Amino acid sequence: MSAYILKTTDKVPEPTLRRLPWYLSNARLMKERGERYASSTQLARQLGMDASQIAKDLSYVNVSGRPRVGYEVDELTEVLERFLGFTEMHTAFLFGVGSLGGALLADSGLKQFGLQIVAAFDINPKLVGTQINGIPIFHTDQFPQKFHEYGGIHIGVLTVPINIAQQVTDTMVSGGIKAVWNFTPYRICVPSGIVVQNTSLYAHLALIFNRLNLE
Amino acid sequence: MSAYILKTTDKVPEPTLRRLPWYLSNARLMKERGERYASSTQLARQLGMDASQIAKDLSYVNVSGRPRVGYEVDELTEVLERFLGFTEMHTAFLFGVGSLGGALLADSGLKQFGLQIVAAFDINPKLVGTQINGIPIFHTDQFPQKFHEYGGIHIGVLTVPINIAQQVTDTMVSGGIKAVWNFTPYRICVPSGIVVQNTSLYAHLALIFNRLNLE
Repeated sequence: MSAYILKTTDKVPEPTLRRLPWYLSNARLMKERGERYASSTQLARQLGMDASQIAKDLSYVNVSGRPRVGYEVDELTEVLERFLGFTEMHTAFLFGVGSLGGALLADSGLKQFGLQIVAAFDINPKLVGTQINGIPIFHTDQFPQKFHEYGGIHIGVLTVPINIAQQVTDTMVSGGIKAVWNFTPYRICVPSGIVVQNTSLYAHLALIFNRLNLE
Repeated sequence: MSAYILKTTDKVPEPTLRRLPWYLSNARLMKERGERYASSTQLARQLGMDASQIAKDLSYVNVSGRPRVGYEVDELTEVLERFLGFTEMHTAFLFGVGSLGGALLADSGLKQFGLQIVAAFDINPKLVGTQINGIPIFHTDQFPQKFHEYGGIHIGVLTVPINIAQQVTDTMVSGGIKAVWNFTPYRICVPSGIVVQNTSLYAHLALIFNRLNLE
């Protein structure tokens, strides 16, 4: 923690990327409480984790620690926010305005973390032409046209029924989408180079139910 | 796959539990298409996975495969639904009716997978006494009373701001909640025996942003 550690150009391991938001949360809270420095031992105590793990994770991020005092809380917060991509706004399209899709459109919290859903697509004639939370809903057939109109959209949020999950993914990818945030419990196939992040609430529910039964 | 494999009493590994919903999705689609049998090689092809991995995962579930034809699609669907806990209704309380919490209350899709949020808690006087999607919102102070009134609530959904995430978790656990579904990007601490499932949309977003930058 004593020396300036340069950001590596290596791919950051997924477990590290999953833990970094925890450090950011704690840094933000320390900042709120007016604390100036956070050492990895302090963070370790707060998080119930190993200090060496935290120091290792933070070595991927371009942040310097000072001997004995630790990381500057302001700097740690800013560097983590920037590193995690939360300071930059990323635009996205959402596919499938069902119950979960509609809920995500209504959740303006995503914007605070750098994701702005700018338009949604569905085939339901009752939804096409309407808006949720100010976000317009177009017919899925209009996707290629809207992709060019909006420009610079790389992320597609997938919240369709499982029976069309693959088909809609194919449409998204052939239309130019580079990353699919898959909320369906369906395992989608994509060409190499396309990013897929699975966030199946149902798989997480299954984990809870299973673990509860064992207690 | 030829013999009847009994459900083990071992703890099912988390990666297996994450994959089982994929097999269920595919079994449901095959059922819809009127297909009667699914072999693990067939599932492997559909899912782009290793057949031996699928057979191994399914060995945790009480389902029998027949030589050469595979699993019966109807049986596989039912057994997986039951095993994953989706056929039984689990009731839950939600804490924090902000943007994400409100969205989850509005998402009736969770009910199809065995989770029914029966009441929500918040301290905002504008929300207390109102309803979302027919679900009443009470003041957080009323939690102990409501916990006894409703009865049999084991799951708490955590969607509060990070600065009160630990405090609300402590309230939930001391009040009798056995499993916390944590949607905050804060790492909460719980006594042993309490189930925690982290579903941080923001951590998943960070993964997408990071991987997109590498492509």
